[in-house]
Amino acid sequence: MNLILLEPHNVTHDGQALLHDQRRLEHLRKVHRAQPGDTLTIGCTNGLIGKAELTALEPDHAALRWAHLSEPPPPALPVHLVLALPRPRMLARTLEHVTALGVKRITLLHTKRVEKSYWQSPELRTDKIHQHLVLGLEQARDTVLPSVTLVKGFRAFLNEHLPSLLAQGRGLVAHPGMANPCPRGINEETVLFIGPEGGFIDWEVDQLLDAGCQGMHLGPRILRVETAVTALLSRLF
Amino acid sequence: MNLILLEPHNVTHDGQALLHDQRRLEHLRKVHRAQPGDTLTIGCTNGLIGKAELTALEPDHAALRWAHLSEPPPPALPVHLVLALPRPRMLARTLEHVTALGVKRITLLHTKRVEKSYWQSPELRTDKIHQHLVLGLEQARDTVLPSVTLVKGFRAFLNEHLPSLLAQGRGLVAHPGMANPCPRGINEETVLFIGPEGGFIDWEVDQLLDAGCQGMHLGPRILRVETAVTALLSRLF
Repeated sequence: MNLILLEPHNVTHDGQALLHDQRRLEHLRKVHRAQPGDTLTIGCTNGLIGKAELTALEPDHAALRWAHLSEPPPPALPVHLVLALPRPRMLARTLEHVTALGVKRITLLHTKRVEKSYWQSPELRTDKIHQHLVLGLEQARDTVLPSVTLVKGFRAFLNEHLPSLLAQGRGLVAHPGMANPCPRGINEETVLFIGPEGGFIDWEVDQLLDAGCQGMHLGPRILRVETAVTALLSRLF
Repeated sequence: MNLILLEPHNVTHDGQALLHDQRRLEHLRKVHRAQPGDTLTIGCTNGLIGKAELTALEPDHAALRWAHLSEPPPPALPVHLVLALPRPRMLARTLEHVTALGVKRITLLHTKRVEKSYWQSPELRTDKIHQHLVLGLEQARDTVLPSVTLVKGFRAFLNEHLPSLLAQGRGLVAHPGMANPCPRGINEETVLFIGPEGGFIDWEVDQLLDAGCQGMHLGPRILRVETAVTALLSRLF
């Protein structure tokens, strides 16, 4: 936890906040070994970052006080990530990785090789997704919550979402066997498509390419989704 | 498991092998839903890759037969990774990620901010490390086992290991606040240093820079070690 992310309900008065959740109280006590009087990095959700004084650390709450917050959050990546829904445990870690890396727009998509049971996972509950996004922000000292959209049908995605997405930026489909390697250090608005374990099926790739996306690959190695997502984002941006 | 990695004791005759471990038998049954007669990708440890026929799948063993193996493993990354020992669960996943990405030389190093208790973890047992390396190779369809060296003292590392490492390639220290960003797409022999959670201490960075390493950073975001390792390797190579 490199930043304490304050949600509106934490802020009690101008320049004062209270934390009540045991996860963060325990982290302050056990990892930070924090004491009243310590200076901590805080940020308001979707807002600015700065330093606060810990004015109390009790069993059921912590109190923070600050004069002003002036530092903007770190820059976001210019990408909309369209990710075939990974298995629940991998989803949790992947959401944390990509949030820490600065992704702000995420679509979780059904494709042929996504197991249908994954859509029933409790990891897809709004509060669970929120929790993983917060962990990613706390890690990277960021405050801006990503938006996560669930699209449970690939055809519906093609018809209802893809055209407006591709109006925003260049579509890139990461898929083994494509002719071109993943480009490096591009600085343009991108819609990045990453398939499930086992990959997109050919028909899905064809649909994306026909809609104007470009294919690319990360080399001969087959990577787990969570490794591939980080590797692709780091190479592209 | 995108490749069945055969160790010498699996090979019973020329072109024949037996598997007895329940992990892989279960994976063949439940994930691959394999049947006798199926064709599977196999590779000999540190050797070639090819196709084999599954000739039996019994509760206590699987039998494989092949004519010849001719495909070389995918290229390795030109890097020696020197990683401050991460916490045990992160170590396990990090070993899998970096092995899948093609790292073949790994040094796990003690630094000031590595908790001493991590060195007592069962995850550092040779058999546990081997298991994570094998999972990375199976994932990436590789056969070449990385070497893992444990160095429990930073001063001993500086005196006994660093000079010969830096004779092999360019030293790069990933550390927040360094002047230069991480270079992209370099194709040269590199020794990559990555600190622990909380980072190297200044003295450690100074020692590495004095020895001829160059510092670099990945940007303003603070990443977990496992995310940072993948991001750095993907950007560098």
